[in-house]
Amino acid sequence: MEKDEINIGLVGFGTIGAGVVDIFNKNQALLSLKAGKTVNLAKVADLDITSDRGVKVAPGLLTDDVNEVLENDDIDIVIELIGGYEPAKTFILKALNNKKHVVSANKALIAKHWEELMNVAEENDVRISFEASVGGGIPLLAPLNEGLSANKIESIYGIMNGTANYILTKMSEEGSEFNDVLKEAQDKGYAEADPTFDIEGHDTAQKLIILSKLGFGKYVPQENFHVEGISKITPKDIEFAKNELGYSLKLLGIARKINNDLEIRVHPTFIPQTHLLSSVNDVFNAVYLVGDFVGPVMLYGQGAGRNATASAVVGDCLDIIFNENKRISYGPVDSQVNNVRHVHELDSKYYIRLSAFDKPGVLYEISGILSKHSISIESLNQKGNKGDIQVPIIIITHTAKEGNVNKAIEEINNLSDVRDEIILIRILE
Amino acid sequence: MEKDEINIGLVGFGTIGAGVVDIFNKNQALLSLKAGKTVNLAKVADLDITSDRGVKVAPGLLTDDVNEVLENDDIDIVIELIGGYEPAKTFILKALNNKKHVVSANKALIAKHWEELMNVAEENDVRISFEASVGGGIPLLAPLNEGLSANKIESIYGIMNGTANYILTKMSEEGSEFNDVLKEAQDKGYAEADPTFDIEGHDTAQKLIILSKLGFGKYVPQENFHVEGISKITPKDIEFAKNELGYSLKLLGIARKINNDLEIRVHPTFIPQTHLLSSVNDVFNAVYLVGDFVGPVMLYGQGAGRNATASAVVGDCLDIIFNENKRISYGPVDSQVNNVRHVHELDSKYYIRLSAFDKPGVLYEISGILSKHSISIESLNQKGNKGDIQVPIIIITHTAKEGNVNKAIEEINNLSDVRDEIILIRILE
Repeated sequence: MEKDEINIGLVGFGTIGAGVVDIFNKNQALLSLKAGKTVNLAKVADLDITSDRGVKVAPGLLTDDVNEVLENDDIDIVIELIGGYEPAKTFILKALNNKKHVVSANKALIAKHWEELMNVAEENDVRISFEASVGGGIPLLAPLNEGLSANKIESIYGIMNGTANYILTKMSEEGSEFNDVLKEAQDKGYAEADPTFDIEGHDTAQKLIILSKLGFGKYVPQENFHVEGISKITPKDIEFAKNELGYSLKLLGIARKINNDLEIRVHPTFIPQTHLLSSVNDVFNAVYLVGDFVGPVMLYGQGAGRNATASAVVGDCLDIIFNENKRISYGPVDSQVNNVRHVHELDSKYYIRLSAFDKPGVLYEISGILSKHSISIESLNQKGNKGDIQVPIIIITHTAKEGNVNKAIEEINNLSDVRDEIILIRILE
Repeated sequence: MEKDEINIGLVGFGTIGAGVVDIFNKNQALLSLKAGKTVNLAKVADLDITSDRGVKVAPGLLTDDVNEVLENDDIDIVIELIGGYEPAKTFILKALNNKKHVVSANKALIAKHWEELMNVAEENDVRISFEASVGGGIPLLAPLNEGLSANKIESIYGIMNGTANYILTKMSEEGSEFNDVLKEAQDKGYAEADPTFDIEGHDTAQKLIILSKLGFGKYVPQENFHVEGISKITPKDIEFAKNELGYSLKLLGIARKINNDLEIRVHPTFIPQTHLLSSVNDVFNAVYLVGDFVGPVMLYGQGAGRNATASAVVGDCLDIIFNENKRISYGPVDSQVNNVRHVHELDSKYYIRLSAFDKPGVLYEISGILSKHSISIESLNQKGNKGDIQVPIIIITHTAKEGNVNKAIEEINNLSDVRDEIILIRILE
């Protein structure tokens, strides 16, 4: 930017907003030194300006009138940290239309209204940046967009939700049940009171939409792909796969190009323990990007939290100050993506767990159904104790078509000797 | 850049140069689409323009006269890939003085002549970029400099040499001796005929100099810090630490701020197996960056090789096209680093292996010496078989001052019952 002094206005003084204020309190000299000009946090707007946020705010900075930011001629960059669709969208559009650059961590809004937001930014010749929206503090969107720009991206997959990863890690380490770990996570503040968004994969899906658009140039709304969470996982599944098969269980968002199609999906996935992603534990996130020249690159760090997210938000502000005219973030990519493949077309290995009466002929029936649908078995494990009426059967398939697997499972489910819900988990190779 | 068409000249048509040509052959449409203008590889200069490099080059592109690049008014960006100090330095300075941006993968040159190169670039109002010089294809310098710019960097440490990591991985997996694995690595092309540069830590040191300058604003020449390689490591050390102590051995470059001092060093290091770096194997590199707000971030990928390195080189070209005026790469940081600490001042845990005659009183003498130098013992393991005359003794210390440890080792070495060289390996906690 040409100006000698840059003024930033913050809208939303919640947890992450307090993190941004904290960065300015502690590192403003560093920011100004790097920018080569004074960088000020000039205004902080929130409806609630009386609660103690645990950080010092200079008198006169706080306002409960958002227009003191959005319509303030002195403000160059607006940080939006209120989250959700409205009034966040209205505020962002107003800022853009007032020729202010916007930095946002709002993945829901960006994933849903991508085109409109990018268009309005472009029409007004300003930037909208959102590094913090995916992977929290991890530098992820910039490397994907810029550092790896010599590559055709082949696949993007990773652990994008800290709450789900914390729960799966604890289930694996302690053998605890999902509901018990969820409660513990809620007590520790790692999970929301209503955890649906995180544990059912919606948060991962929104992040994957953004990564997919940047990596493959294809915008895919959430209703167009398979999103499945971790609430049905049992510690038995995790333990068996860990000890007997050498797999870790992770909730993955996966987008990859197959010929000219895009495969995009969110679901719990078994990963070989030799894969670096399987060592990413607790609330940490990590995303694997594979390019045709660079090969695999993994970016790891804290995917959420006050300080890490605020780091990405302020990093975006500096990037705008340095590169006001940069347009790469919205740039097209030579993706040649035609179709988005339905998950039925997925080719994968599968883990199938079912519960059956321990009677002669059950395995014969099950293997017959699998065979009929062209699903070949890599291993089958039946581990009952003497006298059990019902025994768990765990089947690992060779690579099969998901549509066929679903048909087979439906038929197996209808067998009179098979009880309870059949658990199906995809295996990443 | 304002121009509608950007011409890039390549100096050095070796392995990585061929990778750059390959990227232009396969992905030029993508590069131009992302840049919003035509991006051409306009000239390729090398003394040898007759050897087959395995890639197609358009007629007229090749020249054996470097000045057809350096003095060509149509060339906007010069890629230097000849390596070494001269004539690379002369060529780069000429390009900069001719107002051409420069992209280089030449870590030796940049680490040694940092100040001169940056100054000449600045005087001529052009950029010099060198993402490929550290961590090959991994986006590393840009995230450190830009994405994490809201942070005071606290530490930078990682696996920066693929050859050394390949050797240590194989020694750990197969229990093989250093020299045998080195030979295998040479046969596979993972190690040079003269491997000194990689296995003795010099390559890691040069990369660490660059990271240190960017992260802490402090340029430290290699002669001012401790650099130690892996050639004295035995499979016994690796195996014992893996099975008995839960450590992996890695060659690490480490730079961290302690109060206002900078600690910088390269040496083999035991890392807890729970640390993600310990799962980085084979020729892969990974660097941990810790910032005061973002916490730990790890960036992982191929640290060398034709395609990965070429990816970073071409990525730098695009970054220059997008942000011709960006100056952040040379920006100062508010490091407040005063002194570079000598390794004698290091506080660390240590692994000490020695060989002693199995006689009464030996352990008494050793433990007395350690105690005298304020070194307390966390564990001591003496594992002889009955009848052995000489037995290995492995001592793990609590955190101690390296200067004291060195004095103790000297005294232990002088004991008449202690034989062979004493092995000292630092432990990262």
